[in-house]
Amino acid sequence: MFDSLPFSWLNPTCDRLKFGIESCRHVTTMKSLYGRDLITTQDWSVEELERTLDLSFEFKANRYDHPLNNCLDRRTFFMFFYNPSVRTRQSFEAAATELGGHAQFLEPKTMRLKSGKSAGETVEDAAQVMSRYAVGIGIRILETAIEHYGQGDELLRQYADNASVPIVSMAHDRFHPCQGLADVMGYRQHAGTNLKGKKILQVWGKGALVRSWCSVQESILINSRLGMDVTLAYPPGYDLDPEVIKWCEENAETADSTFEIVHDLEDGYKNADIVYSRNWMTAGFYEDMVKRGIDEAKKNEIEIAAKYDDWITTKDWMSKTNNAFFTHCGPVDRNAEVTDEVCDGSRSIVYDVAENRLHVQKAIMALTMGKQ
Amino acid sequence: MFDSLPFSWLNPTCDRLKFGIESCRHVTTMKSLYGRDLITTQDWSVEELERTLDLSFEFKANRYDHPLNNCLDRRTFFMFFYNPSVRTRQSFEAAATELGGHAQFLEPKTMRLKSGKSAGETVEDAAQVMSRYAVGIGIRILETAIEHYGQGDELLRQYADNASVPIVSMAHDRFHPCQGLADVMGYRQHAGTNLKGKKILQVWGKGALVRSWCSVQESILINSRLGMDVTLAYPPGYDLDPEVIKWCEENAETADSTFEIVHDLEDGYKNADIVYSRNWMTAGFYEDMVKRGIDEAKKNEIEIAAKYDDWITTKDWMSKTNNAFFTHCGPVDRNAEVTDEVCDGSRSIVYDVAENRLHVQKAIMALTMGKQ
Amino acid sequence: MFDSLPFSWLNPTCDRLKFGIESCRHVTTMKSLYGRDLITTQDWSVEELERTLDLSFEFKANRYDHPLNNCLDRRTFFMFFYNPSVRTRQSFEAAATELGGHAQFLEPKTMRLKSGKSAGETVEDAAQVMSRYAVGIGIRILETAIEHYGQGDELLRQYADNASVPIVSMAHDRFHPCQGLADVMGYRQHAGTNLKGKKILQVWGKGALVRSWCSVQESILINSRLGMDVTLAYPPGYDLDPEVIKWCEENAETADSTFEIVHDLEDGYKNADIVYSRNWMTAGFYEDMVKRGIDEAKKNEIEIAAKYDDWITTKDWMSKTNNAFFTHCGPVDRNAEVTDEVCDGSRSIVYDVAENRLHVQKAIMALTMGKQ
Repeated sequence: MFDSLPFSWLNPTCDRLKFGIESCRHVTTMKSLYGRDLITTQDWSVEELERTLDLSFEFKANRYDHPLNNCLDRRTFFMFFYNPSVRTRQSFEAAATELGGHAQFLEPKTMRLKSGKSAGETVEDAAQVMSRYAVGIGIRILETAIEHYGQGDELLRQYADNASVPIVSMAHDRFHPCQGLADVMGYRQHAGTNLKGKKILQVWGKGALVRSWCSVQESILINSRLGMDVTLAYPPGYDLDPEVIKWCEENAETADSTFEIVHDLEDGYKNADIVYSRNWMTAGFYEDMVKRGIDEAKKNEIEIAAKYDDWITTKDWMSKTNNAFFTHCGPVDRNAEVTDEVCDGSRSIVYDVAENRLHVQKAIMALTMGKQ
Repeated sequence: MFDSLPFSWLNPTCDRLKFGIESCRHVTTMKSLYGRDLITTQDWSVEELERTLDLSFEFKANRYDHPLNNCLDRRTFFMFFYNPSVRTRQSFEAAATELGGHAQFLEPKTMRLKSGKSAGETVEDAAQVMSRYAVGIGIRILETAIEHYGQGDELLRQYADNASVPIVSMAHDRFHPCQGLADVMGYRQHAGTNLKGKKILQVWGKGALVRSWCSVQESILINSRLGMDVTLAYPPGYDLDPEVIKWCEENAETADSTFEIVHDLEDGYKNADIVYSRNWMTAGFYEDMVKRGIDEAKKNEIEIAAKYDDWITTKDWMSKTNNAFFTHCGPVDRNAEVTDEVCDGSRSIVYDVAENRLHVQKAIMALTMGKQ
Repeated sequence: MFDSLPFSWLNPTCDRLKFGIESCRHVTTMKSLYGRDLITTQDWSVEELERTLDLSFEFKANRYDHPLNNCLDRRTFFMFFYNPSVRTRQSFEAAATELGGHAQFLEPKTMRLKSGKSAGETVEDAAQVMSRYAVGIGIRILETAIEHYGQGDELLRQYADNASVPIVSMAHDRFHPCQGLADVMGYRQHAGTNLKGKKILQVWGKGALVRSWCSVQESILINSRLGMDVTLAYPPGYDLDPEVIKWCEENAETADSTFEIVHDLEDGYKNADIVYSRNWMTAGFYEDMVKRGIDEAKKNEIEIAAKYDDWITTKDWMSKTNNAFFTHCGPVDRNAEVTDEVCDGSRSIVYDVAENRLHVQKAIMALTMGKQ
């Protein structure tokens, strides 16, 4: 949308100090976020991400009485769920409600949108018309609704090109920016506001859920961007998007931190300050799905994953870390990605991270589409 | 519901002047709209339609701060979707939100309503109980949810007879009053507030969507009613409801304007000020659907429609008009009903008309069910 | 949740007097209801039920301007529908709206919750995370979503054990507390505020709907609890939950009233002050459903029920009563459970009882989860 509106969120003072956050060095130079899309945190500047995190902490501290808590007053936010979700729907709809607005729950399968197979409305027309009714549009589109990796991201960018209101990813095949911001917020709550030099282990976990790359890719992007030392660990065959990996390397270089990929669990857990385990699919899944159908492709993925019995976060593995916090984007696949013992242990921050989805989404809405 | 409540919308002054609308001659004599159903614009007086259009323009000019913008405060509006819809759901739900209320999205397939085939709640009971919870009820019911033309209209009138709150059509087999009002609002924005003597061409368009008669019938009714010269153009076999045609003829006579039916495109486009193309089904569709099933019936309709290759609004056809505006009720079936060139051209008003759905629906809600 | 919070709903004065309700004897000694679950009225004290009924009457008398009408301001209530419903969804969603909040309509079939057959989120995790987003959670789960009687109740209690916000039954296999409270409110409106010694006939009705025990069991529990003389009448084979029957007997003893079971309609209707007819399934239904599938099990139930032709509330049967009021929890299966003549007669209170669902649910929400 509008990339160069004057900065309008009144006098962003050093409220980060108030919530224990290090510094405000970038705040005064950033552009307003009003009208901006959020498809991945990589599209926003570090300053913009920090501003969003600041406001998220404010909303957490002052859930129902923050001065911006009326900023969606009577406004509509559309949630487009090409794929279903528990937490994303709940937290976005609650976020709009807490800001005085309303989020409409829309499932394109019940709507006459044009597809390869049927006549209907084009994305161009839908985006233009929806922009007349709503102040913003969230879109969720994952593997089972698309035919090749990247198609979901293309769709979001096509909406963004045609809508005159912000498009926000509610998780798509490539990215999950709200999760990435909620993760960071959780680390700052627990591991300290200065995460520079802290080691986060992003580790593949076994399981039968054949999960998307989006949360993992967003995690390694934002954490390398914000200066953490990121170790990505997975068994052979689970390579992620090469472009995302390249960005992570660049992010680490810019932030003067490290980004490394390992295939050995010992190397991964050693000295980690935060452990984030999560299952994801192989790079071959999409092609397989198109070729053999989704059921066969999933079956195949589950068989491949079943070989890697060690790839579960246990108390033993956690004992090799620097007394690390355990995190997960949820929903947790217990006793596959992580044992109950670790997930329910005193170092687990999974519920706090889940709660943060609400706060960051309120901040994103307030900054990009709240009334000015 | 209540047909003779005292007029209560405070002092309707000549605000039409403020928004460039011609005169207020009827305002002081009309009945209050509070408690009234809206099943077709034909059921309301011209004065009542003008009052609604006036308020629609006010809401457009003052979207979030109009004095009536709290008139659904904490009130519930039920939306009953026997058939799904994009824009109708989005615009009605947004309208209720903008007035401080909430529209519930209900799909009777997920509810235990009595049908010919199963036990369940009667319309009488459902209407009475819903009247206890909500201030109004919208209903959408189209071809695929009914067995013969007119059955949807009967259902709405049955709800209206049993509910003690207003029933509003959100499009049914016969009529689509909100679309008709949104259309007129668009013409006044672009073609001038005085539409008397302007020629509107309502033209059948080819395509594979087998569309309902409702938007087209509402259009020719309200436009003949409000004094436009209406030309209805379609290929043989696409006759509409004879009773609606009779009403259009009577409307034109009363308004001292013209209503004509042509089967020749040259005649249709010549000197038109507004062109509104739209596909619709043949009169035989319902019988065919009951006899052969919906898939066969649709296939048959698509085959019939495919013969009329010329029936698409092109730049060439538009060049025969009086530099006409192009309109459509949406969603547009591009390159079937109209070419991209015309639909995206400078004379296209399709997005403005789509936006107007929001404003007219707010006005209808405010006037018929807003707090007094 | 919290069982012993200090009483915080400001100075509950004898407002029962204002609305014609007998006495306030218990009010000052009860615990606050804030944070409490409501799975059956049997879990709450009589004083707590009275407090809830008092506030329900207040909300009825002052629907949009009650001082507590902002108590869910910007708050979210989750409605979990494992089974669909008309009135429960409409009335809960309207209740939250009228209190300034928003009820999210969630259907677990569209969500990734763990089941016996598939990986996914556990109830423990779902309950904990949802507690971060919402101020309360309603759950509806009936026969077709479970495998044995009692499983729905177990699920609600499992949610209650893991959530830090109140769990409210929106009808489950065993109980339907909101219906029970709405029933009592209706009796007080019509049969007088002092129901001590009034006879209520709870009578099985024929029909093809194979209905749950929940409304009936809640009715006999709350009515025996609050001192009515309860007669439960049904044909052989329609025994209800033995534990519920035992509680009813204890309730009657404590309240110094009577509870009896009869299988003869003459005995049942004789001198009744209130007649409540309702179909319910045999005790064998669940086993049959698991063994033969739901369609066969339903067919079998319908065949069994069809033998009892007399079990319909007619004008003749009503003539044996003490000019009784007729009530039903809705939706009414007309001319099976009751004739049109009785249901539409001057002594029928079915629509008022239906309306009361809204008021009692507002009261429950205000007291258990409203802002303090």
